[in-house]
Amino acid sequence: MEKLYEGKAKIVYPGPEAGTYRVYYKDDATAFNAQKRGTIAGKGVVNNRISAQLFRYLEAHGVPTHFLRELSEREMLVRQVEIVPLEVIVRNRTAGTFAKRYGVEEGRPLARALVEFSLKNDALGDPLIYDEAALALGLLSEGELARIRELALRVNEALKAFFLERGLELIDFKLEFGRLPDGTIVLADEISPDTMRLWEVGTGEKMDKDRFRRDLGGVEEAYQEVLRRVVGGAG
Amino acid sequence: MEKLYEGKAKIVYPGPEAGTYRVYYKDDATAFNAQKRGTIAGKGVVNNRISAQLFRYLEAHGVPTHFLRELSEREMLVRQVEIVPLEVIVRNRTAGTFAKRYGVEEGRPLARALVEFSLKNDALGDPLIYDEAALALGLLSEGELARIRELALRVNEALKAFFLERGLELIDFKLEFGRLPDGTIVLADEISPDTMRLWEVGTGEKMDKDRFRRDLGGVEEAYQEVLRRVVGGAG
Repeated sequence: MEKLYEGKAKIVYPGPEAGTYRVYYKDDATAFNAQKRGTIAGKGVVNNRISAQLFRYLEAHGVPTHFLRELSEREMLVRQVEIVPLEVIVRNRTAGTFAKRYGVEEGRPLARALVEFSLKNDALGDPLIYDEAALALGLLSEGELARIRELALRVNEALKAFFLERGLELIDFKLEFGRLPDGTIVLADEISPDTMRLWEVGTGEKMDKDRFRRDLGGVEEAYQEVLRRVVGGAG
Repeated sequence: MEKLYEGKAKIVYPGPEAGTYRVYYKDDATAFNAQKRGTIAGKGVVNNRISAQLFRYLEAHGVPTHFLRELSEREMLVRQVEIVPLEVIVRNRTAGTFAKRYGVEEGRPLARALVEFSLKNDALGDPLIYDEAALALGLLSEGELARIRELALRVNEALKAFFLERGLELIDFKLEFGRLPDGTIVLADEISPDTMRLWEVGTGEKMDKDRFRRDLGGVEEAYQEVLRRVVGGAG
């Protein structure tokens, strides 16, 4: 089957119905703008199942998504969207790029969640961007920007509560949004330990891709444990 | 006399009166976060005189500044302020860092002037910052941020008109702001061809520090020509 797009962690194929895509989740892992590469055994299965579960949960909490249904253990059916070329990051504590960029320690709680935007462009290193610049470059409209910020904060509230019930603290995460043919903005891409930071409540143990990025070991085990808690319900 | 601070282009000494500083303008020039270093003969004199003239002009146009008076051809007396640790950049056309960061051509007109903030921190490379992050890091208050944006846009309108009357287009510029002891926000630092991009109307010839950054030659001549037009009045 003809690939429409192959990214670092997923492959997109035409879907079985008009207006749909089939998304295949790979085990390939990259970090630091693909300077570090590897494989996390079973990651594709874990991320497909977690993403599906979280998309269903978010739909039930008033967040429209591109998700339609799971097709297999590594594949989901989604609606075709035109991706808004922004990476939307929501932060509850300082960590990762933010901590490094501004020279602050990791783990400092943020009084209000931050919504941060980067231009989605690997060749440019996904540079940080601010509202006025995103509008000036014609990446999206003012109404779309306001809607994306509103949805990102709604996702944050819903997922913070979801994970806290499962003993995990949501530190930060990356979202992407897309436009349906009628212009409606929906949540797209994936939501998984590849795109979130999750710390064990109490110990602060990292249960996400930072185990791979920072060579902490126990990468597969952490992904499996997050899956177990996501599908198993509140602890 | 004891130096209070020596920067890349200026030295700050205690002033002759309480609550004042004496600022000495050097000929030293740096670019690309001090990776490129050199000297521009007479730059200190030019920048002191241009800055003084522009601070006076801006005061007359409703922008409070730290400027008090010229002390010598390379020195001005200013009010002591606590510098807000942000570089405030106003852009009328794409150029420099902005064009490179987002992969767009230089010189594209921006429908509305952009106000951009960087954390003032050489060791971190003056990283771009957005409103929410600046507030979360406690760099300034929400009221101060709104005031700084308002003043930056007022400076832009005033300086655009000033330079256009002198045959120069104001492409972009960097400002710094400070707090007086009573908390009033005032424009600080300098305004000169070191901190602005000025293009000759008609030809687009660069009349600013880009001649040094990009080895275009005629650096001293460009600085002298800008001074001539600034002090000489409208053409």
